[in-house]
Amino acid sequence: MKHLCIVLILFSMHFVVFGQTRYVMVIHGGAGTILKKNMSPEQEKAFHETLTQALQAGYAQLQAGKSSVDAVEAAILIMEDSPLFNAGKGAVFTHEGKNELDASIMSGANCMAGAVAGVTTIRNPIRAARAVMEQSEHVMLTGKGAETFAESKGLDMVTPEYFWTEGRWKALQRVLKQDSINMQLDHDGNQQSNKTPLDKDYKYGTVGAVALDKAGNLAAGTSTGGMTNKRYGRVGDAPIIGAGTFANDRVGISCTGWGEFFIRGIAAYDVAAQMEYAQTPLAESAANVIEKIGKTGGDGGMIALDRDGNIAMPFNTAGMYRGAITESGEVEIGIYQ
Amino acid sequence: MKHLCIVLILFSMHFVVFGQTRYVMVIHGGAGTILKKNMSPEQEKAFHETLTQALQAGYAQLQAGKSSVDAVEAAILIMEDSPLFNAGKGAVFTHEGKNELDASIMSGANCMAGAVAGVTTIRNPIRAARAVMEQSEHVMLTGKGAETFAESKGLDMVTPEYFWTEGRWKALQRVLKQDSINMQLDHDGNQQSNKTPLDKDYKYGTVGAVALDKAGNLAAGTSTGGMTNKRYGRVGDAPIIGAGTFANDRVGISCTGWGEFFIRGIAAYDVAAQMEYAQTPLAESAANVIEKIGKTGGDGGMIALDRDGNIAMPFNTAGMYRGAITESGEVEIGIYQ
Repeated sequence: MKHLCIVLILFSMHFVVFGQTRYVMVIHGGAGTILKKNMSPEQEKAFHETLTQALQAGYAQLQAGKSSVDAVEAAILIMEDSPLFNAGKGAVFTHEGKNELDASIMSGANCMAGAVAGVTTIRNPIRAARAVMEQSEHVMLTGKGAETFAESKGLDMVTPEYFWTEGRWKALQRVLKQDSINMQLDHDGNQQSNKTPLDKDYKYGTVGAVALDKAGNLAAGTSTGGMTNKRYGRVGDAPIIGAGTFANDRVGISCTGWGEFFIRGIAAYDVAAQMEYAQTPLAESAANVIEKIGKTGGDGGMIALDRDGNIAMPFNTAGMYRGAITESGEVEIGIYQ
Repeated sequence: MKHLCIVLILFSMHFVVFGQTRYVMVIHGGAGTILKKNMSPEQEKAFHETLTQALQAGYAQLQAGKSSVDAVEAAILIMEDSPLFNAGKGAVFTHEGKNELDASIMSGANCMAGAVAGVTTIRNPIRAARAVMEQSEHVMLTGKGAETFAESKGLDMVTPEYFWTEGRWKALQRVLKQDSINMQLDHDGNQQSNKTPLDKDYKYGTVGAVALDKAGNLAAGTSTGGMTNKRYGRVGDAPIIGAGTFANDRVGISCTGWGEFFIRGIAAYDVAAQMEYAQTPLAESAANVIEKIGKTGGDGGMIALDRDGNIAMPFNTAGMYRGAITESGEVEIGIYQ
């Protein structure tokens, strides 16, 4: 918690010296054990560039007078199409060696929302989530049904092989090897079967964006490949409205982290609830949620942007890929604490 | 809203005259266009009896010193095994003529939770939700994966035919016929394909329970077959922690209604959030949520029980199957407004 506070204070100080900085977009590319010592300058540069590109794609939409939903989609598309992040093209593998993707989006202007879970053939799950929000009566579609829907809406469909990347495949093999060692060590095979080890490096990869458009409307979106080695059609917080994603007329939030803790904590909505019912300021509301998750043994982070252009990006992991862009187009990128 | 208030006031008055009635369990069997004129005395009696049986099954657990989780499971099992309710044996049919079931449970003692969505071969989805909560690291499992998990935990598996009931099948045929008429009337076939008519009578069938055990711990659970004629792997609020189900150390909530509105409103958790952050009393918090849902065009209801044994059962539909049992075993059943 001490670290979290210091990070928040530094962040606040940093921005406050420039006066009333008004942000229009904030993004994340996942939180986890992201340490400088494990990152090559080339890798760092690649993350920096892609995060900047995502922010600029969203910003271009906002500058053109498009909606915050357009901006969120544009930013997430860049990250989904990059193999760097655990979403879209860079999704991690399930226990069975598949890629099952989840995404959600919410428009603060009308509190409409859309989500897809467990999809394997939709190139950009964030587009499918948006189609559910705008072109169906539903909020959440799952599995094959969601794919049929996405195809009927003309979305770009791919074969499951599209999501294969060498790095993620190797990560699964490492975890499966560890799994088999643990199996041999564990005498209670039945219990063990649900306690599959998870690759810490890839556990928390998720991408998300929150934007504020010229009309003053907020939107938030989240997209993920879930956890390496996940089983049993496991769904995390990313496609759950209120847990991974939330937006209303006051604040937008996207989370990344150990999904189970974010679901149980109703993490995204809990920021909005504190702001509405207890008049707690944005940064404090967001920090409270991450602190609560930390206390129960979970970790991760979130990004939040309010209607006045204030941002918060608390996390209790070693790092979180993140960035924000101001009204005047200035880009800020962060990776480590 | 006026109706809702009157119902709430009558409810409060009714109970207050008996002094500080302390409830230990509250259940619902779905909300919707439930009108006395459409109900035969035999049907009414059947609902009355099954709701009473469910309350007594939960109460027996509590009396035996078992946990609120045990009580919630026991009550929901009765309703899942009855063809009267849209959950388990009485689940409605999807557009494709299948039964896809969802359920969730949350323990207020430790804020752990479990859920399954889109399962077709698990006799009692509430048991599967509990197994996810207690015997996995996850919160939400979906589809075939959830079934594999449930089977590995020794749960009672059935063939999909187990869920076939004549009444629900006829309801689907009625809706499909209407669907085909609408298709012919609608010139924009593409748009139409996502706007399938829903059978009002069966739209909101869901069962749920909230219990308070002797140790002072709350738990809540919800189980449903979803909407008649649902498509595309649609998931409603029932398996979504925070939307259909929530419990903490202060209050437990289970919802029933037009799921999309309850997801977008984070309905169940919103009751707890108002109580925690704004010190709003239980009945008012619950009424506020249903009012908000009504204002956005949604309908349904919820049951809530707090740690002091107070209950609230607001709904904005014609009726809601509901019941509560006091510490001393007195049963109260309600169907209409």
